[in-house]
Amino acid sequence: MIRYDEENFFEQYANMPRSKYGLSAAGEWHQLKKLIPPLNGKTVLDLGCGYGWHCVYAVQQGADKVLGLDCSEKMLAQAKTRNKNPRIEYKLCDIEYYEYPEKSYDCVISNLALHYISDLRSIYKKIYATLKPCGTFVMNIEHPSFTSGVNEDWVYNDSGRPLYWPIDDYFFEGQRLTNFLGCNVVKYHHTLTTILGGLLSCGFELTAVEEAVPSKEMLKIDGMINELRRPMMLLVRADKQV
Amino acid sequence: MIRYDEENFFEQYANMPRSKYGLSAAGEWHQLKKLIPPLNGKTVLDLGCGYGWHCVYAVQQGADKVLGLDCSEKMLAQAKTRNKNPRIEYKLCDIEYYEYPEKSYDCVISNLALHYISDLRSIYKKIYATLKPCGTFVMNIEHPSFTSGVNEDWVYNDSGRPLYWPIDDYFFEGQRLTNFLGCNVVKYHHTLTTILGGLLSCGFELTAVEEAVPSKEMLKIDGMINELRRPMMLLVRADKQV
Repeated sequence: MIRYDEENFFEQYANMPRSKYGLSAAGEWHQLKKLIPPLNGKTVLDLGCGYGWHCVYAVQQGADKVLGLDCSEKMLAQAKTRNKNPRIEYKLCDIEYYEYPEKSYDCVISNLALHYISDLRSIYKKIYATLKPCGTFVMNIEHPSFTSGVNEDWVYNDSGRPLYWPIDDYFFEGQRLTNFLGCNVVKYHHTLTTILGGLLSCGFELTAVEEAVPSKEMLKIDGMINELRRPMMLLVRADKQV
Repeated sequence: MIRYDEENFFEQYANMPRSKYGLSAAGEWHQLKKLIPPLNGKTVLDLGCGYGWHCVYAVQQGADKVLGLDCSEKMLAQAKTRNKNPRIEYKLCDIEYYEYPEKSYDCVISNLALHYISDLRSIYKKIYATLKPCGTFVMNIEHPSFTSGVNEDWVYNDSGRPLYWPIDDYFFEGQRLTNFLGCNVVKYHHTLTTILGGLLSCGFELTAVEEAVPSKEMLKIDGMINELRRPMMLLVRADKQV
């Protein structure tokens, strides 16, 4: 259950730097953008497009046609206002329920959405099917060390300093109740075996695997140094060969 | 600094089930063996061969010639007694200092040795070079969530029950002082980015990535259930294409 459409949650989300300022304020972007293939003249599908920042980036890179899916009406309302473009279609649709027309996209992008998906392998299969031959899937998913975090939070000392990041129940995949922006949010923990092995078993070739690390510039932001203490996001590029 | 040759440490190691009973007593073996390609008529290099269990397995699978390297004399003495075979050569040599003759092996295996290596990428390059075209590298390395563990140990409650597995300083790779079998042991923590991205950047194709999970049989052993609470080993198969 994603709560992006709940009033309180959305207000908080709208105040995040990545919402207000777009990709330049997203800690992973300096790495993710290097994984995206050339998009000139290409068709792109964005799974969990949110405000549409990646959709408009694709168009700026010359993409011919972009479809952005999101299950939140409020998100899409923002996308249609801030990142409206004749080459972009925004569609209210769950990632699970989209039709995934066969061999239709050159590139599928999914940024920070797939940890809301319970059955990752079934989505991988659909992505593989909807990619054209030689198509590319670029994803950013919450890292298994992050989603297996106990309450997805640090253990703190008496003065409130993070002591360490506790993990537990790693091999028990599935639902995790977490707190994000002061609200209860349900996510799904997947092991690395599922995230990467799942791509391989669907026929993908893994061509990049890297963990997001804040840029030097970002590390100047208060508290950002803690992002070097445990991994939060896993970036993967997976290619369809034929 | 590996201390396998120190008397106390070696005595402890010799008492581990995997030392006494071989591969069948190693929790990861039921998965690792599936990653090893057919070895009939093949040449095999085992980096960190220990008692030689994997070398003798390779011969049983029909391997023509096997070289087992280890930096511990005591380990090799055991290998030469227990797993002596005319097709196996055991050689006292650090993984870093071996010559890695070009295009000489069909398969390179390394089980639980590469977390003692500081510069993983340089070893990957050597392995790539020493593999014949279409050769396969199969490795089992301690998982980054394990090597980034604080003192590589659980946090316990007052009655001694493991509460959770704490991780810290994940993106600070390098030396970790740990306790293994009651002795101080130096290991090297590598991120997933280095372990998997490093293989890709050396030209390997990743063909399997999975975390070791104890078999149902093993889970009956006292305390083994905790192995489901955090990942300990990462198994990878990487192929050289040309």
